Amino acid sequence: MKTVMQVVCVFLLSTMVMLAQQVPVKIVFDVTSPDTKVHQSTVRHVKAMSQAYPNSKFEVVMYSGAMEMVLKDKSVVASELETLVKKDNVDFVICQGTMKRYKAKASDLIPGVRSVPDGILEIVEKQQQGWSYIKEGQ
Amino acid sequence: MKTVMQVVCVFLLSTMVMLAQQVPVKIVFDVTSPDTKVHQSTVRHVKAMSQAYPNSKFEVVMYSGAMEMVLKDKSVVASELETLVKKDNVDFVICQGTMKRYKAKASDLIPGVRSVPDGILEIVEKQQQGWSYIKEGQ
Amino acid sequence: MKTVMQVVCVFLLSTMVMLAQQVPVKIVFDVTSPDTKVHQSTVRHVKAMSQAYPNSKFEVVMYSGAMEMVLKDKSVVASELETLVKKDNVDFVICQGTMKRYKAKASDLIPGVRSVPDGILEIVEKQQQGWSYIKEGQ
Repeated sequence: MKTVMQVVCVFLLSTMVMLAQQVPVKIVFDVTSPDTKVHQSTVRHVKAMSQAYPNSKFEVVMYSGAMEMVLKDKSVVASELETLVKKDNVDFVICQGTMKRYKAKASDLIPGVRSVPDGILEIVEKQQQGWSYIKEGQ
Repeated sequence: MKTVMQVVCVFLLSTMVMLAQQVPVKIVFDVTSPDTKVHQSTVRHVKAMSQAYPNSKFEVVMYSGAMEMVLKDKSVVASELETLVKKDNVDFVICQGTMKRYKAKASDLIPGVRSVPDGILEIVEKQQQGWSYIKEGQ
Repeated sequence: MKTVMQVVCVFLLSTMVMLAQQVPVKIVFDVTSPDTKVHQSTVRHVKAMSQAYPNSKFEVVMYSGAMEMVLKDKSVVASELETLVKKDNVDFVICQGTMKRYKAKASDLIPGVRSVPDGILEIVEKQQQGWSYIKEGQ
């Protein structure tokens, strides 16, 4: 009887641990920095989390000073970002207002990067929909 | 009949677009940087959003290193900020703890800037009331 | 009668003020900066708030570039942090992924600092539990 209880306990416990690991999170990352170190740490964070939590969703919104992070000819994270954005649970989006200020065209973007009319509004809407918010930057 | 349906569809669609644009957002901006570029981009963001979303509310809370942003003799955004803060849906508030540390008086502030006892508590209360949070800075 | 009303009003008002001051807040602070000024202002904020709001809870999560803030031989806020973390309502936690990248051991940490498997996930879980979020940094 004791052994049966032990087996049940271990089963319940491991189920709980699995469930805990599987609870999907949704995170919107805010990047405004021109600092390439911030671009690199952002990509590192999203890469690690999207691997560790495949059922979760991650969206990185770039605006203000972060334009170069998504320009295919200037980004220091171009290849990692292009690979990352192919995942179903990862999105990288750039603010169209920022593109306008930097005179950037859709064809200048790293393939797979989407644009949204207003970067801040995108972040706000995600927060309203229950996404957690992480500001990248130092 | 087809034309009527088309008219109805266009009507419904444009109503939805209008509604989407009119959904009021409430955003509290957190500014702690002494960097004047951050002061300028904050003002640019609030100006653009308060024009685009006149039914929405925007509050900018300055504390820690951002004291000079609201000092009328030192701020690089003094005139834009003074104009912006006159709008009904825009508030700029400075932390009284920060004012004390910088020995700033109410009369040193750009006209229209309010002060609150504790900048972080102000931001936290706004978040608790459902406001979205944007950290300005790089 | 007027005096009685005045007394009642003052009583009600002071009760409301007391209640307002006692409403417990829960704040998770996000620190990723290697900048020692950010480490100092973070400690200053948590110290002031944990004194002013003893019924509230404060957790500071360090990850990415903020490793040195919690290393006992390198932190510029080592003694303040060691004192602060002894409070019941204050926690300082470091990301184990960051420790790994910096080859830091548990014995290198300022006494009282805890570690968590994933700093960003820790912040996200706090947000999901209703904690307010403050990004430290400039």
